[in-house]
Amino acid sequence: MSSMFGSRLRLSLFGQSHGECVGAVLDGLPAGEKIDPEVLAAFMARRAPGQRLSTPRQEKDRVRIVSGLVEGVTCGAPLCLIIDNTDTRSSDYSLLRRVPRPGHADLPAHIKWHGFNDIRGGGHFSARLTAPLCAAGNLLMQIYARRGIRIGAHLYAACGERDLPFDPLRVREEDLALCASRYPAVLDAEAGERMMERIQALREKGDSGGGIVECAVLGLPPGLGGPLFDGLENRISAAVFGIPAVRGIEFGEGFAAAAMTGSTHNDGYRMRGGQPFPVTNHAGGVLGGLSTGAPLLFRAAFKPTPSIALHQESVDLEQGTDTPLSVSGRHDPCVALRAVPCVEAAAAIALADDLI
Amino acid sequence: MSSMFGSRLRLSLFGQSHGECVGAVLDGLPAGEKIDPEVLAAFMARRAPGQRLSTPRQEKDRVRIVSGLVEGVTCGAPLCLIIDNTDTRSSDYSLLRRVPRPGHADLPAHIKWHGFNDIRGGGHFSARLTAPLCAAGNLLMQIYARRGIRIGAHLYAACGERDLPFDPLRVREEDLALCASRYPAVLDAEAGERMMERIQALREKGDSGGGIVECAVLGLPPGLGGPLFDGLENRISAAVFGIPAVRGIEFGEGFAAAAMTGSTHNDGYRMRGGQPFPVTNHAGGVLGGLSTGAPLLFRAAFKPTPSIALHQESVDLEQGTDTPLSVSGRHDPCVALRAVPCVEAAAAIALADDLI
Amino acid sequence: MSSMFGSRLRLSLFGQSHGECVGAVLDGLPAGEKIDPEVLAAFMARRAPGQRLSTPRQEKDRVRIVSGLVEGVTCGAPLCLIIDNTDTRSSDYSLLRRVPRPGHADLPAHIKWHGFNDIRGGGHFSARLTAPLCAAGNLLMQIYARRGIRIGAHLYAACGERDLPFDPLRVREEDLALCASRYPAVLDAEAGERMMERIQALREKGDSGGGIVECAVLGLPPGLGGPLFDGLENRISAAVFGIPAVRGIEFGEGFAAAAMTGSTHNDGYRMRGGQPFPVTNHAGGVLGGLSTGAPLLFRAAFKPTPSIALHQESVDLEQGTDTPLSVSGRHDPCVALRAVPCVEAAAAIALADDLI
Amino acid sequence: MSSMFGSRLRLSLFGQSHGECVGAVLDGLPAGEKIDPEVLAAFMARRAPGQRLSTPRQEKDRVRIVSGLVEGVTCGAPLCLIIDNTDTRSSDYSLLRRVPRPGHADLPAHIKWHGFNDIRGGGHFSARLTAPLCAAGNLLMQIYARRGIRIGAHLYAACGERDLPFDPLRVREEDLALCASRYPAVLDAEAGERMMERIQALREKGDSGGGIVECAVLGLPPGLGGPLFDGLENRISAAVFGIPAVRGIEFGEGFAAAAMTGSTHNDGYRMRGGQPFPVTNHAGGVLGGLSTGAPLLFRAAFKPTPSIALHQESVDLEQGTDTPLSVSGRHDPCVALRAVPCVEAAAAIALADDLI
Repeated sequence: MSSMFGSRLRLSLFGQSHGECVGAVLDGLPAGEKIDPEVLAAFMARRAPGQRLSTPRQEKDRVRIVSGLVEGVTCGAPLCLIIDNTDTRSSDYSLLRRVPRPGHADLPAHIKWHGFNDIRGGGHFSARLTAPLCAAGNLLMQIYARRGIRIGAHLYAACGERDLPFDPLRVREEDLALCASRYPAVLDAEAGERMMERIQALREKGDSGGGIVECAVLGLPPGLGGPLFDGLENRISAAVFGIPAVRGIEFGEGFAAAAMTGSTHNDGYRMRGGQPFPVTNHAGGVLGGLSTGAPLLFRAAFKPTPSIALHQESVDLEQGTDTPLSVSGRHDPCVALRAVPCVEAAAAIALADDLI
Repeated sequence: MSSMFGSRLRLSLFGQSHGECVGAVLDGLPAGEKIDPEVLAAFMARRAPGQRLSTPRQEKDRVRIVSGLVEGVTCGAPLCLIIDNTDTRSSDYSLLRRVPRPGHADLPAHIKWHGFNDIRGGGHFSARLTAPLCAAGNLLMQIYARRGIRIGAHLYAACGERDLPFDPLRVREEDLALCASRYPAVLDAEAGERMMERIQALREKGDSGGGIVECAVLGLPPGLGGPLFDGLENRISAAVFGIPAVRGIEFGEGFAAAAMTGSTHNDGYRMRGGQPFPVTNHAGGVLGGLSTGAPLLFRAAFKPTPSIALHQESVDLEQGTDTPLSVSGRHDPCVALRAVPCVEAAAAIALADDLI
Repeated sequence: MSSMFGSRLRLSLFGQSHGECVGAVLDGLPAGEKIDPEVLAAFMARRAPGQRLSTPRQEKDRVRIVSGLVEGVTCGAPLCLIIDNTDTRSSDYSLLRRVPRPGHADLPAHIKWHGFNDIRGGGHFSARLTAPLCAAGNLLMQIYARRGIRIGAHLYAACGERDLPFDPLRVREEDLALCASRYPAVLDAEAGERMMERIQALREKGDSGGGIVECAVLGLPPGLGGPLFDGLENRISAAVFGIPAVRGIEFGEGFAAAAMTGSTHNDGYRMRGGQPFPVTNHAGGVLGGLSTGAPLLFRAAFKPTPSIALHQESVDLEQGTDTPLSVSGRHDPCVALRAVPCVEAAAAIALADDLI
Repeated sequence: MSSMFGSRLRLSLFGQSHGECVGAVLDGLPAGEKIDPEVLAAFMARRAPGQRLSTPRQEKDRVRIVSGLVEGVTCGAPLCLIIDNTDTRSSDYSLLRRVPRPGHADLPAHIKWHGFNDIRGGGHFSARLTAPLCAAGNLLMQIYARRGIRIGAHLYAACGERDLPFDPLRVREEDLALCASRYPAVLDAEAGERMMERIQALREKGDSGGGIVECAVLGLPPGLGGPLFDGLENRISAAVFGIPAVRGIEFGEGFAAAAMTGSTHNDGYRMRGGQPFPVTNHAGGVLGGLSTGAPLLFRAAFKPTPSIALHQESVDLEQGTDTPLSVSGRHDPCVALRAVPCVEAAAAIALADDLI
């Protein structure tokens, strides 16, 4: 197994949900880059638990950077960041070694690691690992911003309600900033309210819902990426599926392109200011694995939170019998809500081999 | 750039559409594995051009294995396979250095490689590179078959028409064999005919269409893969986006999961023959990056073939002017048709680090 | 840059000499392996400063394992270990940003990282990074020991004095245990005393000396490693040169083989107990990159500690003038003394891709 | 196993000694680099068999580049090169599956690959694989030369005779050119003659001898490489041990440094033309893994050719008995003679991740 990503810039995630801490090593950052701890803290707050309709688990998610910085500036050495787990309640999970939770990795992880896996809160499979993912991603986003590259996402759909989509050709920094300032992160505040009502209703029933996050990257120069396995889609999907609960990813028109024709899907070119520019952006800013210079756009689908209070069918591995299971504990009724910054961070990490 | 994939078993693709040959190196195959050239040739024939409603380009796609075998059996050394390009017509493409084709990598590749890229037929970005991909994938599939693991795909959708889906929990080897024996590769022969009619109609208009390929992997033991970036979804998506024209991928319910609830999406467990077994397979056989033991199921969306005879908007890079473009040459009106074995091969390659 | 090693098992080192801590992430350890903290502490003590004729810097080098263990047993998740830097005195190093120390990486690191590198104690280039290297190596050695594989080294030469060599064909676990129990780690205690006298004499003069460490790996099954770039020599050398101050490495007869003949260097075979066995072990247990089953033997040469009190020629980078430099601070007069466990640890790490 | 090297630029070697061909894929070359086939052929001629006191095997070693070039210029796509095996005599080797040759990988390879390995001429373990290594290395050297970086080596020692060493601080391009023009490649022609006499005498006795190759890299900018596992020594040693028969490597003073003192080994600095410059070059141009700007210097030790006509002890694996073995066939009595360009090529490959 490898919880690592990247080749020039390498990220290594570690930690378990109810262990001492979670964290990350980022190896390959350029030297001389200032890291702003307040920008980092503000980003972490967007993912942090304890917000409206999220798990009541209290984690301040303060990021301690224990190597790689000298007076707040990267020094070329690997950066290690640590986020302590302060609100762990392992006793919640004692039953789960025997009764695997449907929709979770409990059972295959038990088989893979012969019962030695850390079952507490899902261990290393927990969405808690997105905390160091977000921290690492934001450090990169701070560097990208100085190079004119912005990454932003919004909650495109949740529990059957839809936000407005990004305008493929004209999405702007202001749109990204607007979404980053809202909770839920939406372009259309009313759509956001409808989503929250649906989520609230599901929670009251002891159930949960899924969602879709749409992400844009602005300012990418054309020609990044590569053919075949080195394309931006390959790398971004490999990183985004690192976020627990992601079930699909699509670029540009994505699955809708399957029902389109070449004449409606192709993005024609026109000269503009002496440069060729695409007339439309059905491609989502990536052709043949290479950035086109238009906004890069992709969507990631999240399944409903598997931990629900409603009774589900499960088995008792010790007794070899069927047994119903109701997962108590503290859980988000819709993980997509807090996944918005996670998708931004995963995109930042995926692009690092090209941008760093 | 890197046209390589994998860590324990590494695949390296090389060649350009209208160069001397295309090929692949597979490094890390186990020794002692018999390779059946007829099985390989039959697989290559499923992808080969010259079939109904595909490009009339004539390529026999005979695979020459120039290293790594001793008397038809792997010897542990890297296997190099070569497929000669016999029917190249470079003159078709002379205009394209000046006028980039919409929907192709021509323009970003021109920028990336400062005009030195091989423009003939798309060069290294051509779908011709799926020939060595298929060859490499089939070598692995021959090995997997001896271990009880089968990979098969079908054309789930094309130009707006749909095939029957695989039954998530009960898809069988016979289903895979049926699809592999048909062209187009469908479960429902009538749906296949409707697809072909639609494709024919698009071709007559000088247009093209997209499609969706659904793939199943049977016989995977539970616990393969890993958390975070090492999940089966990460690897499979990183490989499948290596096939030109793929725009999206989803596992299990995929994007549909975003509108489901936890209580309808979670796969409960029951004991069966002393073992826990999922009651449903909305997860598509993968939870938290790990195989569950149920059939692994994913779908890949293909955009319409970008090369169309209809007039499109483009630009003349030399003259700096707008110019219309009609792409003549020999092209598939629906790449998804011949992409079915490519998706199988990509899945085989993605699983090699776990299975070899 | 990448302070990472390995492909199946990956090690990532982080930290700077006078930062908050040094540490490592080990990703890919098997689950279910018990880690004995006392064995680890005893190993760390062999490398720790504060011993006879080493730097008086006081570091307890207590290893805190903050992830990857559940009740002292590996759980399959990445293991992160941290060693706090408790006795840092950054003021010792303030001059060195201007006046690079001869024999150190100060000047090229200054150029590489545009002056942003952490100069305090050599930063990430410091031999302090061998503390997490040793910790990671010992965790592996504990696992190997349960599989019958033992790694041990001794101080083969220091400041012109030589220890007895390991017997290439008959080195035993007892020999390794004897060396591990001694300081300096030698087979011949009198040779060790002569070395210490030489080192003492050099220290009194404000000078320093070099040395050679010889390492043996016992119990390796034959056939590990691979041809070309995948040989045991390739991997071991790539890991051992990760220890600061190493200037050369040789396997078996090494450089002496260059003056031998085929008839004296080749190791003949005889049947013994139904198995072929080498009559001699000039190869040092590795042929064509593959382990032979005989003891694996290599030697690493260490240069003299570059930090010396004697005046040396240097330059003032700010003023652009020549200037003499005397390096005060706390330094080992012979780094090879404490490097013995570091070489064992590096060998353990190098073998992990084959043994884990 | 992996016959691959590198991360940004990746080399993949394939082929067996008596298979159809040997070859290499180079992935990651920049686009727009002209390749001069005559320079390549001249380099290949330095390694080719058939020279004085080498194997009489006749191989023209013509390099066919089958992908990655358009009109002699790199196009950004992976470059595949193939060298046909034209003079194979497999019958020479039929006995060797039963009776492993001392000093060869025959026995451990038999164990590793369960008897399926290609025994003919050593298969993938053969020194024949240095032909594609040299070809790949020379392509890189052609690119480096345009950036002012030159790599050259000489036969520093053979069978007990020594050439003059390179002057560590003042080795010049003319020295490299002189060695490249001579066979054997020496600075001192008389030393070369003495070497040849010794080799001739060993051949007449049916024996063989070892040697040492010294290599210099001129024009490297300071600051290349990295700390810990990313140092130039790590990479160069990992590549150079890919050449069969290498038993040791040392940088700068290497093993001699172990008997030096800090005051004699450290390279002081003086200002020269406004820049700090080392007064001596005991470091061989690399400190802490980073290039210093002085000539990079290393030496590689080669063991005597293991294939000798003299009788040696071996075993019959089928019969389980001891048996004498005399290796007939066509063999170099001193592999170091033809290894000089191989070392240059390995150095070129090792530096590619930094220079490309």
